[in-house]
Amino acid sequence: MSGSKGSARLSGALLKPLLDSVDCVLFDCDGVIWRGDQVIPGAAEVINLLKKNGKRVFFLTNNSSKTRRMYAEKMATMGFSVAPEEVFGTAYCCAAYLSTVCQLQGSKVYLLGSAAMGQELEAVGVRHTGLGPDHITGSQSDWANVPLDPEVKAVVVGFDQHFSYMKLNRAMQYLTQQGCLFVGTNRDTRLPLEGGKIVPGTGCILQAVETAAQRQAQTVGKPNHYMFDCVASQYGLDRARCLMVGDRLDTDILLGSNCGLKTLLTLTGVSTVADVEAHEQSGCPERRKMVPDYYVDSVADLLPALQG
Amino acid sequence: MSGSKGSARLSGALLKPLLDSVDCVLFDCDGVIWRGDQVIPGAAEVINLLKKNGKRVFFLTNNSSKTRRMYAEKMATMGFSVAPEEVFGTAYCCAAYLSTVCQLQGSKVYLLGSAAMGQELEAVGVRHTGLGPDHITGSQSDWANVPLDPEVKAVVVGFDQHFSYMKLNRAMQYLTQQGCLFVGTNRDTRLPLEGGKIVPGTGCILQAVETAAQRQAQTVGKPNHYMFDCVASQYGLDRARCLMVGDRLDTDILLGSNCGLKTLLTLTGVSTVADVEAHEQSGCPERRKMVPDYYVDSVADLLPALQG
Repeated sequence: MSGSKGSARLSGALLKPLLDSVDCVLFDCDGVIWRGDQVIPGAAEVINLLKKNGKRVFFLTNNSSKTRRMYAEKMATMGFSVAPEEVFGTAYCCAAYLSTVCQLQGSKVYLLGSAAMGQELEAVGVRHTGLGPDHITGSQSDWANVPLDPEVKAVVVGFDQHFSYMKLNRAMQYLTQQGCLFVGTNRDTRLPLEGGKIVPGTGCILQAVETAAQRQAQTVGKPNHYMFDCVASQYGLDRARCLMVGDRLDTDILLGSNCGLKTLLTLTGVSTVADVEAHEQSGCPERRKMVPDYYVDSVADLLPALQG
Repeated sequence: MSGSKGSARLSGALLKPLLDSVDCVLFDCDGVIWRGDQVIPGAAEVINLLKKNGKRVFFLTNNSSKTRRMYAEKMATMGFSVAPEEVFGTAYCCAAYLSTVCQLQGSKVYLLGSAAMGQELEAVGVRHTGLGPDHITGSQSDWANVPLDPEVKAVVVGFDQHFSYMKLNRAMQYLTQQGCLFVGTNRDTRLPLEGGKIVPGTGCILQAVETAAQRQAQTVGKPNHYMFDCVASQYGLDRARCLMVGDRLDTDILLGSNCGLKTLLTLTGVSTVADVEAHEQSGCPERRKMVPDYYVDSVADLLPALQG
């Protein structure tokens, strides 16, 4: 699969020069350093050794179900030495986007999301309504005339395990109002768990709301460059000296290409070498952006260059 | 807007020849003969007079929330003289499709739908599971390992006011099993109610399930020809002598074009004359199929030719 424009297996003599060429490594989480609650063997050593070798390490995850603090705590139990400020999940980044780009500090949003998203919104001064179950009552006419909070300025869609027809309806009623903003965390359609299991992702919920509202949401998650901009602006990163490591071509690797980063695919998650080859051979410039510079079976393959 | 290939306002001298040229009139319901629980003025007289004038009259609705009997009862309270056998809703047609085309008599399906859909399925000997609320409990791992009924051979999606993340997940888990069929009633994204109000339609729910399952459902509702075939095969209709009356270009009028029927748009529902003109002027053969032969402000405009 290697070649002048292709993707190369990262091993042996290629390892050290690549790591020497970067100051910063950005990791996706699900499918890269863990699957569900199962840590990828060697991932903690890789992260800790990268830091010991003077690299900056950050975590960019489209998963919106945890706050930065919750991620840092999960990582601590798995043996990673990570501070909350090094984690850029979509719960945090979405809150940052709403407060800075949308200027919604002090305003209120209708939130389809998790308690964690609510906490990140509160931390930046964005009020919210909508958390938790919203079961259906009454008739169609009641649904169409459901009371709306006049303070709501935006509908925000993340992962919501309490998603329901009534929430879909309420989001649609807000979105048909003049000037209501529409922001989603990400478009991942499935969440991969341990043992090859899957559950529906935020992309399914967002698709239902977009179909009802007949509008497209602005999403902050990968492959949108906003997520990298968020890290880069806070830490003054040189993008040419950053490596993005992920398991998905359509989010992680595309983000890296969009932002001019070096890219590394790990084969412990969603995408396969066959997926890479299909993009390489497509002849389509858009699909070529999803071809990583390098690939490895697992992040553990970086260990030899770090322990040496 | 009239012209050799365009759409003509149906009035005056055009009325009687058109009605003389057909034996059968097929009506959509929502937006044509009623909006929500509000009957369109004159609709009952038109239906009753058509029958008195020897025309066969049928009702083709994508709405899956009622059985044939429930529709006939609703119509009776509004002054229409209609038998259950004259109503072809997607609850009934979907059941017919599952029992005849899919050969699922005696088998079981996972149903996202209404109690009415359940009743129509039972009437043709298709068993089902899934009706009613399905609230979330446990963790992601529990959702991924949710117990599945081994007898289920298909996932069927109609309008389900109890739609929830757990139902989305359960549907996806069934649909990733080998050989599981996937049938939807229709793709209407919004349900129009009285006073210009709307609520989300089955299309939003179906879109969420399709996104999660990474598969397309086979839909039985308009514009799919199955719904007309269902009526035509039972009553031996001559399609050249049928008139399809509806308020939506992308379902009713497209069905009529797909099946070689005469088509009439009423302006009491979703589509407008501007929509017709946009299709006419598109130069796109697929969009030209959504241009009706005729249009009227309301079905009441047929009255003069029937009372004479």
